Amino acid sequence: MKIGLLGMGTIGSGVYEIAQGLSDVEVKWVLEKRFQADYITDDISVILSDPEIELVVETMGGLHPAYEFASQVLDSGRHFVTANKLLVSAYGPELTALAKQRGVAFLYGAACGGGIAYLANLTIARGVDRITALGGILNGTTNYILDAMQSKNSAYADVLAEAQRLGYAERDPSSDVDGLDTQRKLILACAVGFDVWLKPEDIPTRGIASVLPVDAAWAKAQGLVIRLCARAERSADGAVRAYVEPTLVSKTAPEAAILSNVNYAWYEGERYGLMSYIGQGAGKDPTAANVLRDVRSVDAGHRYMTREVCAAGTPDNAGAMERYYLRVPAGTELPAGWAGRPDHSGAWDVYETNPVSVSEMHERMANIRSAFFAGIRRT
Amino acid sequence: MKIGLLGMGTIGSGVYEIAQGLSDVEVKWVLEKRFQADYITDDISVILSDPEIELVVETMGGLHPAYEFASQVLDSGRHFVTANKLLVSAYGPELTALAKQRGVAFLYGAACGGGIAYLANLTIARGVDRITALGGILNGTTNYILDAMQSKNSAYADVLAEAQRLGYAERDPSSDVDGLDTQRKLILACAVGFDVWLKPEDIPTRGIASVLPVDAAWAKAQGLVIRLCARAERSADGAVRAYVEPTLVSKTAPEAAILSNVNYAWYEGERYGLMSYIGQGAGKDPTAANVLRDVRSVDAGHRYMTREVCAAGTPDNAGAMERYYLRVPAGTELPAGWAGRPDHSGAWDVYETNPVSVSEMHERMANIRSAFFAGIRRT
Repeated sequence: MKIGLLGMGTIGSGVYEIAQGLSDVEVKWVLEKRFQADYITDDISVILSDPEIELVVETMGGLHPAYEFASQVLDSGRHFVTANKLLVSAYGPELTALAKQRGVAFLYGAACGGGIAYLANLTIARGVDRITALGGILNGTTNYILDAMQSKNSAYADVLAEAQRLGYAERDPSSDVDGLDTQRKLILACAVGFDVWLKPEDIPTRGIASVLPVDAAWAKAQGLVIRLCARAERSADGAVRAYVEPTLVSKTAPEAAILSNVNYAWYEGERYGLMSYIGQGAGKDPTAANVLRDVRSVDAGHRYMTREVCAAGTPDNAGAMERYYLRVPAGTELPAGWAGRPDHSGAWDVYETNPVSVSEMHERMANIRSAFFAGIRRT
Repeated sequence: MKIGLLGMGTIGSGVYEIAQGLSDVEVKWVLEKRFQADYITDDISVILSDPEIELVVETMGGLHPAYEFASQVLDSGRHFVTANKLLVSAYGPELTALAKQRGVAFLYGAACGGGIAYLANLTIARGVDRITALGGILNGTTNYILDAMQSKNSAYADVLAEAQRLGYAERDPSSDVDGLDTQRKLILACAVGFDVWLKPEDIPTRGIASVLPVDAAWAKAQGLVIRLCARAERSADGAVRAYVEPTLVSKTAPEAAILSNVNYAWYEGERYGLMSYIGQGAGKDPTAANVLRDVRSVDAGHRYMTREVCAAGTPDNAGAMERYYLRVPAGTELPAGWAGRPDHSGAWDVYETNPVSVSEMHERMANIRSAFFAGIRRT
């Protein structure tokens, strides 16, 4: 199959290099402004007017012009494969509809899990099972930071700077550390596993930017480990819960064994039980390999990752309760019933709360950015 | 697709039940002697003479008549899907060749990993990557026994009896506890990942039947956990190492987090890095769901799990060395250089050896069945 490749950044050059070794995939065109070669063009219409191009891979990232290119590619009757979670979480329903209308494939297996073939397996699993819950540690940058803080007793800023030096964190790390990257991946997983497209603004999402050594110390004293977790559940009547927040897990929990920038993605099915996937959630080669996995699965007839019926929906977190670790500025007033007396720790009040509504916790803390909270899951 | 099903035991009835809920798979015939119904026959020729049957699923287990049936099904130009690791480890090359000759599918994704789609993913991964190592905890029965012995300080016989009561262990548990089930699964994984069919007798294999509480206590005192692990590596020149033996891993190792009868299967690729899969390695519903995953992938064009060129081969364990925990009857003489003084423990001498040849350890201990040894992997 002859393909076009949009973008020759880290993932794109990985796709190009791996494809060199494959007999069934040929990168005929690369869209890229920065380099010149006879297979490189800076004009997408060159790719869209080449009748030999059956499929286009997008690895540019960002919303624009990725969205416009995606629409043009699909509209031209070509398959579209992307690793761009921002694009899919924002325009997934529309692009899926367009792909179906044109009878071509729209696949994004590398957009959630990077090198982990999580979505590809979830797509297959939900075909023979009913998925009841899913989630995991879906962002390697934040896991690297949390793991380093806890194993080396380091401060957040120092570890973040080290992660940036190693290329694990971007210069502007906000989409990682604020949980937005995790949130987008959770949107994709819910679409595939639960047949519902959630909107980013409907998913309670809290990141790790406010974590302090005092939080890590509290967790350690309790035999717990801090991880940034995505979690979604589907009840028997189809209602979906979904949220992203720091979580304190037992040292023997699977999440605790996820070190450095590794990802951990799981789903639970009525028949399969709990299935977990652990591996490189990002990085050039693993992600590029998964992009090519998608390309080949188009050849094998694979078209969409969601079911025929997968409409927009809103999570219902009303019944979602967690017992929280909560650190707030000293003297912060909390709703009655959340907790008894705080442990005072200098400028902070530290609580282990009673079970509290997830939505309410996220709402109350939305404007207290220095606060840190984490659901407690002792096992 | 209309299919025939050979055997209505645990897995077979699971396949039958799940297929009831699928619109694209219909079980038209079941071969079974014990029950009667209009879709049940005790004569395979009824299935083989029905032109509507495109694919036959085998869930009978055992070598005969499973092998004869497999040959007849493939020879008749029908696809063949099986969960029978004994069949595939013994006749894989021959049945693959027959399937290729007839242009039909031969898939066995549920034969290694049960409900874990390990082989299916390995098949895809090796298409875009070079697999360098693979292995894991591939037998739930032995993991249940080892986990219970260590968490409850129980004796092997008591835990085995409990596992038999729960249906986790068979009345004759030897193929599980002697490591043979793990060995067969490793053969399948090496065929898919390394393009080589190994013979059972060439793979050093030691089980857990001789494990004693004193072994568990030694491990615990060292902060280690006993697991039965399969392990295979492929060097740059294509030489393959493969063996099955008890292994002592650190408490923080991923293997240590695998509890009860759960399975853990991993591979390492030059591009993907380490990819791990954790889930139910056996049981009715998970295994049956994976059988149906294979059935559906036939519809999507999937034909074989191995590459075109996958010939018989012999593992070369010459360079494989492990540092071992070794418990032998008091006074047993060991080769010079294996270890210094033993710790005497009543009737036993207990050693932590120097690095020792894996092959030599297995050979020396082959006739000392009361001895227990385990490779030590501290991380």
